[in-house]
Amino acid sequence: MGARELGLPERVPSVDGLPRRVTIWEVGPRDGLQNESAVVPVEVKAEFLDRLAGAGLTTLEATSFVHPKWVPQLADAEELLARLEQRPGVRYPVLVPNERGLDRALAAGVRHIAVFASATETFAKRNLNSTVDDQFAMFEPVVTRARAEGLDVRGYLSMCFGDPWEGAVPAEQVVRVGTRLLDLGCSQLSLGDTIGVATPGQVDRLVGAFSEAGVAVDALAVHFHDTYGQALANTFAALRHGVSTVDSSAGGLGGCPYAESATGNLATEDLVWLLDGLGIEHGADLDALVETSVWMAGKLGRPSPSRVVKALAG
Amino acid sequence: MGARELGLPERVPSVDGLPRRVTIWEVGPRDGLQNESAVVPVEVKAEFLDRLAGAGLTTLEATSFVHPKWVPQLADAEELLARLEQRPGVRYPVLVPNERGLDRALAAGVRHIAVFASATETFAKRNLNSTVDDQFAMFEPVVTRARAEGLDVRGYLSMCFGDPWEGAVPAEQVVRVGTRLLDLGCSQLSLGDTIGVATPGQVDRLVGAFSEAGVAVDALAVHFHDTYGQALANTFAALRHGVSTVDSSAGGLGGCPYAESATGNLATEDLVWLLDGLGIEHGADLDALVETSVWMAGKLGRPSPSRVVKALAG
Repeated sequence: MGARELGLPERVPSVDGLPRRVTIWEVGPRDGLQNESAVVPVEVKAEFLDRLAGAGLTTLEATSFVHPKWVPQLADAEELLARLEQRPGVRYPVLVPNERGLDRALAAGVRHIAVFASATETFAKRNLNSTVDDQFAMFEPVVTRARAEGLDVRGYLSMCFGDPWEGAVPAEQVVRVGTRLLDLGCSQLSLGDTIGVATPGQVDRLVGAFSEAGVAVDALAVHFHDTYGQALANTFAALRHGVSTVDSSAGGLGGCPYAESATGNLATEDLVWLLDGLGIEHGADLDALVETSVWMAGKLGRPSPSRVVKALAG
Repeated sequence: MGARELGLPERVPSVDGLPRRVTIWEVGPRDGLQNESAVVPVEVKAEFLDRLAGAGLTTLEATSFVHPKWVPQLADAEELLARLEQRPGVRYPVLVPNERGLDRALAAGVRHIAVFASATETFAKRNLNSTVDDQFAMFEPVVTRARAEGLDVRGYLSMCFGDPWEGAVPAEQVVRVGTRLLDLGCSQLSLGDTIGVATPGQVDRLVGAFSEAGVAVDALAVHFHDTYGQALANTFAALRHGVSTVDSSAGGLGGCPYAESATGNLATEDLVWLLDGLGIEHGADLDALVETSVWMAGKLGRPSPSRVVKALAG
């Protein structure tokens, strides 16, 4: 038996402000894979999603309907969804950048979509060729039509803490853009630390600023990258504010695939270890997740950067 | 310029309970190197220590006076200390297991020592061939003589959260053994999560239990391992209790050298990123630390597991 079976400390559900239950928003199949240079076969993606559902995850961001030229890795979105045997009780949201993407998603029978916005001017320009204000002209018809079709819409907000060109991002600016996404009809806002620079004080401040602006904490999710090792400390800070949806990626998929050492998304397994220790329900089976990530690492040909996967798979 | 220069968010010194300043207790040269199978040349160790001092660290655990048969890597303790040009304002504590070790340390002119104890019976048996109560028969004469010689003595307490053989370790048991070390004359107690299983709720509870037992928070340090990725979240929990001494290892040295993927001590660089973001003073220069860890990784022939080192050195 490993350390996990024998060394796991008593669960302590006593920290103030923690939610009783957390929804893990699994982004590995989309955010984790989208930067892979070698195209992952569609049957591997389908099995990945099915294994993750089998491990008890209930929200699996499956793919993206961005133009295949932008993200060739996810050009098989229709084929993947057609092949996927969706499990009852599991949501399979997809990323949708524009009306053309929405058309494709609707044709594929999708019920949950996500749009993505930038909190900063420079990233809006670079990622969307737009401005912070003008980007809404793109989302508005998407969100409006999706809502009219009865779809659930999530809003991603990038660069909520630091921006590689602009530096620190003022909380007021993030709140302004974020509330606009919610007002547009998004049911949830995922606050992204796209470059992984944030620390818990910034998380405290930003989540607090949304609360002060009258946004319910249930409307917020957090999306941390572990580039500087801060993702889990930031997650803990968000949990203490009552945030109960956390984005993560199985095995920590999502680092730059060209640099074996680079780290990307918070690993779902590391998050599960934290939640288990805090006595927060999440419904996932850690052993099955680790097994899935080890299997996927084999398919990608490099080890998972997740600390938990390394420790338990070793 | 990298993300650090341009993407670092504004520092937020506003989280409740945080200390204004933290002492980084650097354990890389001792705890980090002691498990290396290939002996690191003494001149490399001396340069490592000097570079760390040059990077602004003021407490460098230099080596150990355990019997060379136990830790062959540190058999050069006398030679290292003789070779080392100690800098003013920097402490160079050494580990001392018994009276013979104290004799050697005193002969080498050491002014700061640390003893190590186990919070659990099984680890006391395995690591010290003793029991939790009987181990004090070993420390007592060491601490008493060291104090009489005017030395400062730190107490390390292992397995404070989980134990691979016993599982969860009751906080009352840790407080009982820990206060006994303090009563013996240790000026500080370092609470070790030796197998890296703890989560922030356990840290909250244990530090709180010491406070309830009347132990001043300044008498406590924390020593986390990042085996399951929890070290920095746990550190943040401890900082929120006002703990102001944190153990860490430059570059995250200290994983099992036989498994390249295994992770060990909390990396000093990842800690510095956290402290910087929280606006907590520490006196270290992150660029110089990263440069030192990259240099050391070259000497050891494998990359640093620190997220920050990977991100900034890449």
